[in-house]
Amino acid sequence: MPVYDDPEGGLRVDARALFRWTAEVVQRLGSPPDIAKDVAELLIASDLRGIASHGTARLPQYVKLADACVMDPAARPVLEHGKAAISLFDAQNGFGHHAGRVAIDHAIERARDNGAAVAVVRNSNHYGIAGWYAMRAAASGMIGVSLTNTSPLVAPTRARVSMLGTNPIAVAAPAGKYEMLVLDMATSTIPRGRIEVAARRAESLPVGWAIAPDGSPATTPEQALAGALQPLGGEESTGGYKGYGLALMVELLTGILGGAAFGPNIIGLFSTEGKSDLGQFYMAVDPAAIGERAAFEARLEQLIDQLTHAPLIPNAPGPVLYPGQPELERNRVQQREGVVIDREHHASLLSLAKRFAISFPAS
Amino acid sequence: MPVYDDPEGGLRVDARALFRWTAEVVQRLGSPPDIAKDVAELLIASDLRGIASHGTARLPQYVKLADACVMDPAARPVLEHGKAAISLFDAQNGFGHHAGRVAIDHAIERARDNGAAVAVVRNSNHYGIAGWYAMRAAASGMIGVSLTNTSPLVAPTRARVSMLGTNPIAVAAPAGKYEMLVLDMATSTIPRGRIEVAARRAESLPVGWAIAPDGSPATTPEQALAGALQPLGGEESTGGYKGYGLALMVELLTGILGGAAFGPNIIGLFSTEGKSDLGQFYMAVDPAAIGERAAFEARLEQLIDQLTHAPLIPNAPGPVLYPGQPELERNRVQQREGVVIDREHHASLLSLAKRFAISFPAS
Repeated sequence: MPVYDDPEGGLRVDARALFRWTAEVVQRLGSPPDIAKDVAELLIASDLRGIASHGTARLPQYVKLADACVMDPAARPVLEHGKAAISLFDAQNGFGHHAGRVAIDHAIERARDNGAAVAVVRNSNHYGIAGWYAMRAAASGMIGVSLTNTSPLVAPTRARVSMLGTNPIAVAAPAGKYEMLVLDMATSTIPRGRIEVAARRAESLPVGWAIAPDGSPATTPEQALAGALQPLGGEESTGGYKGYGLALMVELLTGILGGAAFGPNIIGLFSTEGKSDLGQFYMAVDPAAIGERAAFEARLEQLIDQLTHAPLIPNAPGPVLYPGQPELERNRVQQREGVVIDREHHASLLSLAKRFAISFPAS
Repeated sequence: MPVYDDPEGGLRVDARALFRWTAEVVQRLGSPPDIAKDVAELLIASDLRGIASHGTARLPQYVKLADACVMDPAARPVLEHGKAAISLFDAQNGFGHHAGRVAIDHAIERARDNGAAVAVVRNSNHYGIAGWYAMRAAASGMIGVSLTNTSPLVAPTRARVSMLGTNPIAVAAPAGKYEMLVLDMATSTIPRGRIEVAARRAESLPVGWAIAPDGSPATTPEQALAGALQPLGGEESTGGYKGYGLALMVELLTGILGGAAFGPNIIGLFSTEGKSDLGQFYMAVDPAAIGERAAFEARLEQLIDQLTHAPLIPNAPGPVLYPGQPELERNRVQQREGVVIDREHHASLLSLAKRFAISFPAS
């Protein structure tokens, strides 16, 4: 996940106050308090980490889905089938955040007994940042994995239309003095939001980000927004088929394995035409089941030491980073100083505050 | 894995005859027959699929490692620790192919009971194509995953030196009428072998493949061979940090989790300085544990139908492919017509035939 730059003229809001406000709004939609708490935790965690695109800025859209009755804010996931190391949940078309929290906690508990465990969720919805669930496992001393399918935005190699989502892969692990390693990446070269930023800045686009509607490389944000994103690797000659393959593997482990909607058939978050029926995959692997946890973390620390002290290419913008490092640093600052939200985002939350008559925290 | 073009002036050798010959050579190194059979199966499967770089062409190097006593051809993996859904094996510095076959079979068996299972191997060696182990799980009706760390060839984003291997990711699943979905990809943009091919063809290199020793983009194969490969995504601006992140996650689940060597500390296949101590990760996930296997395959078939019938970009070299399709087709042809090996490869095997006095199959 890219950490966004602070928006120009952004406002700072205390993270705890924003959390309480968000949880109240979600309750007004009909969610019981524990479900509202899960949703709010995910959204605030995302804002704190600088992933504004997956935080409270999404709240107005969740409200639209609930208003249109294509998502059920009160639904609780139901455990359907399973064995010791795998379980399938039906999220009952409720909040993906809550179903995900339940599923990863279930996987962590099972992994404590069995060393590793998978939980698959179907009939789910948008679940915020994939990394949060992986981080929850890491906070329990385990390696966590979190995958979701999403609505089609990415053209497979050689295709000129979107057939797969940006299908993220998240993996996290406890990392000693580095706290936590957190990879949380879309399997497209860049997220759609980055094209929107390029449009506002009137930038031209490098080859490998997106294609135009006719399938040629998109050179302007307008072409890209009308066309499709490219998978990680970009063109076929620079390995784009690998990004396509990764997106397809996420689809395999989520929609296909779970029996949810998949690929080109998914109705996205920004449509109220029908339910999304997303699939999600969670895994927890316990290093303590096969060795000493402290030794595991010491090895990871040593590797991060080596990576972050590597000699640099000319004009490197900084040292080698480890995955999750910029988000960890942003989280620390914003916990202390408040979450920065831009004017548009602020206005959209004020309008929810007005509708539900819950006053928005002062900045 | 890229399928290589047929070499100019290549010879065809019957696959069964090549298998028998290879198994005999491996036995002469000191491997018991069952271990030799595993090694030969892996190497011939790779040749059949058109991955010449990981097939019998590697045999002379394995012989060198055995001669130098940095690998033990007779060693059997030992199960060290574990719980129901995770096991750690010490490969005892034996053939990675054999340890891998034992470990994936163990994971498949455990997944049959528990729905999913992981096997981690330490103190291992080069194991051939990562996809073979994942395919073995797929042939048992499961989703298979296979990962290995490898010696450093890839520079992390912003670094100018190799710190991580090409650390492949392989995932396979049974796919109905499409037989099998097999993703088997290095997490670098291209394999080092592709640079060697470019050198023979005197090609210039696109940005995103490799860097020169000073850290600038390599434009010639010579610069690239003296420098480092780039992770999938290439430059930082085109998502190279994601490929770096993926390579690091493979390292996390192999060397770091298993307690093997890791990252810049690994001694590679082409060195006889010391043992490699590689780490490998295998997983089997049983779709039948949470639903109907036939329904799972039907969903996957439908998705592949949709993908492979997508409208194409201008000048597409063919239809949209599914991962593993070119290798599957090459395998079919070579099973029938024999494996094509080039002159250099042929000469290297003839020299082994002479040394061990086992006549090489006629072409």
